[in-house]
Amino acid sequence: MSEKIGFLVIGHGSKLPYNKQAVTEIANMITENHPEYVVKVGFVEHSEPKVKEALMSFEGTGVTKISATPVFLASGVHLTEDIPDFLDLDPETNQGEVELDGKKVRIVYAKPLGSDRLIADLIFKRVQEAL
Amino acid sequence: MSEKIGFLVIGHGSKLPYNKQAVTEIANMITENHPEYVVKVGFVEHSEPKVKEALMSFEGTGVTKISATPVFLASGVHLTEDIPDFLDLDPETNQGEVELDGKKVRIVYAKPLGSDRLIADLIFKRVQEAL
Repeated sequence: MSEKIGFLVIGHGSKLPYNKQAVTEIANMITENHPEYVVKVGFVEHSEPKVKEALMSFEGTGVTKISATPVFLASGVHLTEDIPDFLDLDPETNQGEVELDGKKVRIVYAKPLGSDRLIADLIFKRVQEAL
Repeated sequence: MSEKIGFLVIGHGSKLPYNKQAVTEIANMITENHPEYVVKVGFVEHSEPKVKEALMSFEGTGVTKISATPVFLASGVHLTEDIPDFLDLDPETNQGEVELDGKKVRIVYAKPLGSDRLIADLIFKRVQEAL
């Protein structure tokens, strides 16, 4: 069986609109570049929909595997505690499963952005714009 | 007079070590690629040094202009309120100045990472690693 992959793109959320806007734009870019994936967006706090609601919105899409994908720079308490709790991930394996349309669908947990050179290059670009 | 630019790289900070580690690694990449800049790192909360202390550590470096550079995905309350407050930025211009070695040095404020295609590509890479 060929897999149909869901991207659960997870943002922090904010009282201001900019985090939701940036995370949604990033999700839209992924959708444009990779239309074979089903992309949903959810937030840890302040913004809607929340992570669990976004997870359940894969109902009816036929995904066979979901990557929970934090749009966070680095791991912190949200990534080590809150998101695994929302998604009921096994703390040993960092994986879980959710029942969608009567079938169990596996959830894997992607790493945050981290200290990739792409980030350093983007930071440098932002400084050049400001100077 | 040619400018000598300081990068004040600003991270969120965390109770866990990963945010400080990622922000510091990103700052080190910038230093390696651009040794003509003076790079310092400061944090909004939880991690040390704090933003103001990092700003004052440009004393003795001879910088003539500082870019305050948030390593944040998007603007939120930390970027619109806390950091401008720490750096005493003018809310109209988003610029400020600090006295270092008896001279006034201008501070400009760079934008956060935002919804750049580089981020979307990096997110996609993180998902491929997880699947």
